[in-house]
Amino acid sequence: MQTIKNYVEENRKRFLDELFELLRFPSVSADPKYKGEVLKTADFVAEKLKEAGAENVEVCATEGYPIVYGEKIIDSSLPTVLVYGHYDVQPPDPLELWHTPPFEPTLRDGKIYARGACDDKGQFYMHVKAFELMMNTNTLPCNIKFMIEGEEEVGSDNLGKFVTANKERLKADVVLISDTSMISMENPSLETGLRGLAYMEVEVQGPNRDLHSGVYGGAVANPATILCQMIASLHDENNHITIPGFYDGVIELSAEERKALNDAPFNLDDYKKDLSVDEVWGEKGYSTIERTGIRPTLEVNGIWGGYTGPGAKTVLPAKANAKISMRLVPGQDWKAISELFKNHFESIAPKSVKVSVVAHHGGTPYVTPTDSLAFKAAYKAIEEAFGKQPVPTRGGGSIPIVALFEQELGIKTVLMGFGLDSDNLHSPNEKYDVFNYYKGIETIPLFHKYFAEMSK
Amino acid sequence: MQTIKNYVEENRKRFLDELFELLRFPSVSADPKYKGEVLKTADFVAEKLKEAGAENVEVCATEGYPIVYGEKIIDSSLPTVLVYGHYDVQPPDPLELWHTPPFEPTLRDGKIYARGACDDKGQFYMHVKAFELMMNTNTLPCNIKFMIEGEEEVGSDNLGKFVTANKERLKADVVLISDTSMISMENPSLETGLRGLAYMEVEVQGPNRDLHSGVYGGAVANPATILCQMIASLHDENNHITIPGFYDGVIELSAEERKALNDAPFNLDDYKKDLSVDEVWGEKGYSTIERTGIRPTLEVNGIWGGYTGPGAKTVLPAKANAKISMRLVPGQDWKAISELFKNHFESIAPKSVKVSVVAHHGGTPYVTPTDSLAFKAAYKAIEEAFGKQPVPTRGGGSIPIVALFEQELGIKTVLMGFGLDSDNLHSPNEKYDVFNYYKGIETIPLFHKYFAEMSK
Repeated sequence: MQTIKNYVEENRKRFLDELFELLRFPSVSADPKYKGEVLKTADFVAEKLKEAGAENVEVCATEGYPIVYGEKIIDSSLPTVLVYGHYDVQPPDPLELWHTPPFEPTLRDGKIYARGACDDKGQFYMHVKAFELMMNTNTLPCNIKFMIEGEEEVGSDNLGKFVTANKERLKADVVLISDTSMISMENPSLETGLRGLAYMEVEVQGPNRDLHSGVYGGAVANPATILCQMIASLHDENNHITIPGFYDGVIELSAEERKALNDAPFNLDDYKKDLSVDEVWGEKGYSTIERTGIRPTLEVNGIWGGYTGPGAKTVLPAKANAKISMRLVPGQDWKAISELFKNHFESIAPKSVKVSVVAHHGGTPYVTPTDSLAFKAAYKAIEEAFGKQPVPTRGGGSIPIVALFEQELGIKTVLMGFGLDSDNLHSPNEKYDVFNYYKGIETIPLFHKYFAEMSK
Repeated sequence: MQTIKNYVEENRKRFLDELFELLRFPSVSADPKYKGEVLKTADFVAEKLKEAGAENVEVCATEGYPIVYGEKIIDSSLPTVLVYGHYDVQPPDPLELWHTPPFEPTLRDGKIYARGACDDKGQFYMHVKAFELMMNTNTLPCNIKFMIEGEEEVGSDNLGKFVTANKERLKADVVLISDTSMISMENPSLETGLRGLAYMEVEVQGPNRDLHSGVYGGAVANPATILCQMIASLHDENNHITIPGFYDGVIELSAEERKALNDAPFNLDDYKKDLSVDEVWGEKGYSTIERTGIRPTLEVNGIWGGYTGPGAKTVLPAKANAKISMRLVPGQDWKAISELFKNHFESIAPKSVKVSVVAHHGGTPYVTPTDSLAFKAAYKAIEEAFGKQPVPTRGGGSIPIVALFEQELGIKTVLMGFGLDSDNLHSPNEKYDVFNYYKGIETIPLFHKYFAEMSK
């Protein structure tokens, strides 16, 4: 532990400078206009892996953005850890809400503000630096492989193909990912599960052109009004989702499991205060922790139609659109749910409009076995680094690829995240604590150490 | 009539060229970025009034866009006609749907395509040319005054003040407006009423920032979802508007009046075909003509919230907004209705969000007395010009200023419109038939002739 602390201490400034360099690339995978920058980011990551001591580093082309691979095989008889992360980020908008530009990382009260600071550049780069540390202090106790992709924020479509086509190269004993969060730095936690995702886009088409709302208003279906009515019908008065069959197969937790979950440190008043809301919202019969952790949800991620400029335009719009995504839990298949949604949404459309539904992408829910070696190693590493036992939690987010690793590579994943829910992931002013960054770099070598020891 | 026809024939080309010049000004009053162009348009209109023979022409400054005034007083003992029109236009977007640029007027199969071609540049300019005609053929039978404003599309806020402050200058016996439409050129019609308007903008504020829909989804109210639920609740299953008190005071028409209205030529199949809709929509118990003519309505003119860019962003938006306007009928006061809407909308907001409502502008419904001299003169003029008696109709649109003329100047308005409902007012590819343009220039002098004669 002292060796680790010393190395981190000696390289504090450089570790931060390098992360800032990485954060300056606007690697937004959702928006084609950033394509050149996303590609440059991949090259930068490859370069840094080489500098840290990785071999066989390759920027692997895909039909979309490339996957950066690198490895260090010290002894084929030793266990192998496959580190996964992603160098792409969410779109930065709404830009006007950022206090400092999203791609000019800024340090304020010990926090790094930038798009991707936490999700996931700041977190995967800890692994690159922890790897450098183990190499330069001759403490790498096992083989290590890196797979850093550039399409996580848009569904990881090509990573699936890549994994399937590279099973031999990716052969490992466990997947290690830092792309999730802890309850707080005082209350370190370790995620035991992730929700799945089904992301849809809908369009309601009314008349063949925008109409004058005075001349036609009241006599022709308004697609914006109809879209609102259709979306409103997707939740009932208890905020249950009304899509027939949506909850079929959902695995309910036992009273004990639910109690354990609700025992995690959580203060509803602080939660509401942090968000400036007077009341929380959600499915009747479940706590806030359960609503985000073990229950499926349906959210409108975006809606638009008609005139949205300044002033008043008396138009009856020709069409209205919405992006709607569902978070799924164990027992739900994202492809089946996407199909259920499409059929239901089309079935509730009145004859006065035409509705089309497309599925953007999805992901399968995942649960990490708490009795696995890897989970125990992560648990021990955090306990030593933080001087406190981590609380097991259920994450609300989704990392679609996790289920695929198990399916294609037959190995489990450990979710050792160092972010905080308050890090504004996917929001303006995304941040990552410098403390968490260094703490992560200290914790990761301990994971490798204990995983290697326990595997003996 | 022959004199008129000859003059129009001799000046066909110039009349059209001048209108094209006027249409090239992007005089969008709703969007500040067009300010310079709107001002230039006012100067152009003033110049053309002078050329036509108007005196005391003035570009009258207001707190907003100027009002162009001009007059020709030939004999104070003769009746005076006050011509009203507006030189501002609706925003052109969505631009991508225009076949030719909105501010580059284009002639296709006898139609002029341009923003403002019909609403209202093409229509008010007919009066300028008809005035020129009467001046140059020494046939002006009465005094004439022009008042052309630049804020009709944004609520005519400053015109009201101008009228109140200029009662003497605007003294007249009737207001003549061409800013409405006919059933068709084969079925000329004359509007006997207009709907009022109350235009609102609402904002639903959820959390204080955009959130990750995985981390918070299901536990925090989604303002886009809530906005949809609130908007959906504004109509019941019969498409009646649910705002308490909304229909109070609405003047129901007698069975005879409704029959007369429904006797107007109207083909539902053609109507649906023109709009490419399989079914019409609207308030149960009323025909399409009644729904747009004599019933109040509520339309979503625009809605936006969350991520609306390409691809998928898993965000739970901080807020969602909508522009919602109501068309009103005689018996409804727009200020009272705006207040009703505000109170109701705020009252149905769940505690999990904050709602704010602002009223953009409004207008009072209006009915033209069919037994007035002016209406009879318009009726006779159309009958002679078209060789067919016009059908009395109720217009669905609103010209807020009409009620104000009666209140402030104590005079009635005649709505002698030459547009067609299919002219795409407020929509992409707005158009105006060249035939209508010339026909209007021929009809207007006849109105002045008969109005002067009947006033003797």
